[in-house]
Amino acid sequence: MNEFELIAKLTKSLPTNENVLTGAGDDCAVLDLGAPDKLILFKTDAIVEGFHFTRATPPEKIGHKALARCLSDIAAMAGTPTAALVTIALPENFDAEFAAKIYGGLNALAEKIGVAVAGGETTTNPGRILISVALLGTVARGKQILRSGAKSADAIFVTGELGGSLMEKHLDFEPRLAEARWLAEHFSIHAMIDLSDGLAGDLPHILKASGVGAELLKPAIPISREAKLAAKKSSSAKPAFAAALTDGEDFELLFTVAGKDAVKLLDAWKKKFLKLKLSCIGKIVAGDGILIRDKSGSHKLNANGYVHFA
Amino acid sequence: MNEFELIAKLTKSLPTNENVLTGAGDDCAVLDLGAPDKLILFKTDAIVEGFHFTRATPPEKIGHKALARCLSDIAAMAGTPTAALVTIALPENFDAEFAAKIYGGLNALAEKIGVAVAGGETTTNPGRILISVALLGTVARGKQILRSGAKSADAIFVTGELGGSLMEKHLDFEPRLAEARWLAEHFSIHAMIDLSDGLAGDLPHILKASGVGAELLKPAIPISREAKLAAKKSSSAKPAFAAALTDGEDFELLFTVAGKDAVKLLDAWKKKFLKLKLSCIGKIVAGDGILIRDKSGSHKLNANGYVHFA
Repeated sequence: MNEFELIAKLTKSLPTNENVLTGAGDDCAVLDLGAPDKLILFKTDAIVEGFHFTRATPPEKIGHKALARCLSDIAAMAGTPTAALVTIALPENFDAEFAAKIYGGLNALAEKIGVAVAGGETTTNPGRILISVALLGTVARGKQILRSGAKSADAIFVTGELGGSLMEKHLDFEPRLAEARWLAEHFSIHAMIDLSDGLAGDLPHILKASGVGAELLKPAIPISREAKLAAKKSSSAKPAFAAALTDGEDFELLFTVAGKDAVKLLDAWKKKFLKLKLSCIGKIVAGDGILIRDKSGSHKLNANGYVHFA
Repeated sequence: MNEFELIAKLTKSLPTNENVLTGAGDDCAVLDLGAPDKLILFKTDAIVEGFHFTRATPPEKIGHKALARCLSDIAAMAGTPTAALVTIALPENFDAEFAAKIYGGLNALAEKIGVAVAGGETTTNPGRILISVALLGTVARGKQILRSGAKSADAIFVTGELGGSLMEKHLDFEPRLAEARWLAEHFSIHAMIDLSDGLAGDLPHILKASGVGAELLKPAIPISREAKLAAKKSSSAKPAFAAALTDGEDFELLFTVAGKDAVKLLDAWKKKFLKLKLSCIGKIVAGDGILIRDKSGSHKLNANGYVHFA
């Protein structure tokens, strides 16, 4: 049983109540807690030594990453983060300075974004550091962007460039909070998600939630310089295009809008965000799954994110 | 550096913002997120295999405990829990049935209390299971009970009986939610905390936050049957009174009210909660620290929760 099968089993029939508008299965839970103009976004995310960072990672960057991942999920709903609680589980003979620097990196990002760190706890986890962040945010009532709103003929957009994140970006990425809020304020965004498991891993979440498929244009998918360099360096490395689809931890925004809004959105974006690339990478189609088109034709993307081109 | 020193260091200067009414250092964070009549309570708590449970613990009870601990903190603020997110970190070769049963126990308690499980995640933690629960609750604006409101000459009350929890109660205790709300609705409760680190560990949190001391009456402190039995069984066991002060994981409520309300409160409690003992165990005094009185006089409780009686 893999992670997704386990999650599916565990979340089959979760208890709910009238406060929950969106539960498990989107970037954040969406709750109505009685604020007349606002809904509450609620998210947790954990990072684990040996998987998301190592003991050699600068501790400030570990803290940055722990909070930034949760912030990226608030961004994916077009929300504004408010307050975090931080749980740090430490080995028994931990280095207190190291732990303090983890908090330092996390606090610096929180301060910059205007998020309060309203508490949390330290506990013991022999063998490795584990950090779990719980984050609350708000979004104007009715303005939350879910995964489930994509419609046939929508244009699909992605911010930034994909692949190669594990070389450095995964430790110091900037969550796309301002960009997401600007998008939601100025356009009717149909569906949005942040890319943590790669385009090939996360686009299917939008497609399944929306009951649609996608056709991507291979040359339109933005590949990062890091992914290209890595592919060049070694013939055994992942090809750059495969890296852009499957590396994960990009923490860019993937979203859809009606096709008629695509050009207007792209023009407005270029004026507003001079330094951050925005790419239209394809369109939503009826059906399911992902087709990738290049000059040789259309190819089905398989479940592992790999595609065989002729 | 012990846990409390580390927490003090890490939480010395946390970022905050205008939404945070109470941050680190109370049972829950208290936030104002714009609901006209309500404040938001926010809490996380983690349990770790080998410390809070073992692989031999029935998995349903692990799940129950993980959520109940957080619920107990919402109770300590006189709040109503609303929605939880659950993070389960599992060893790489975990037993999916075992994980599902942990969720089962947690969900059963959530269902009973009316709490939604609005998502969460599974992640990897080689060697041991770790469960972190993030919980949101609400409290009528201005009705939250903090640790900091105890006043000189207040009566100190505790629910239930103390000590011996690790024999069984820590796995299936009932958080005192209804009791705490009833107290807050009917009396002016000055300060409240839930007992997780034992009376000797947690009463000082109220005293420090309130800038006061306490004088306890030794014969008034309710000692559990389990603590008494354990002390009788072996001459090397902790004396029953020491167990009641220091065992921890009682998850009972400890609170203070004005001395003039004490008898009325005790009478009303006895009519309302027939099965749950309530004990007046002493009073708040000027100064700091804890004195324990018995027929031989007053004795200072030392930092380890031990007291030497003549």
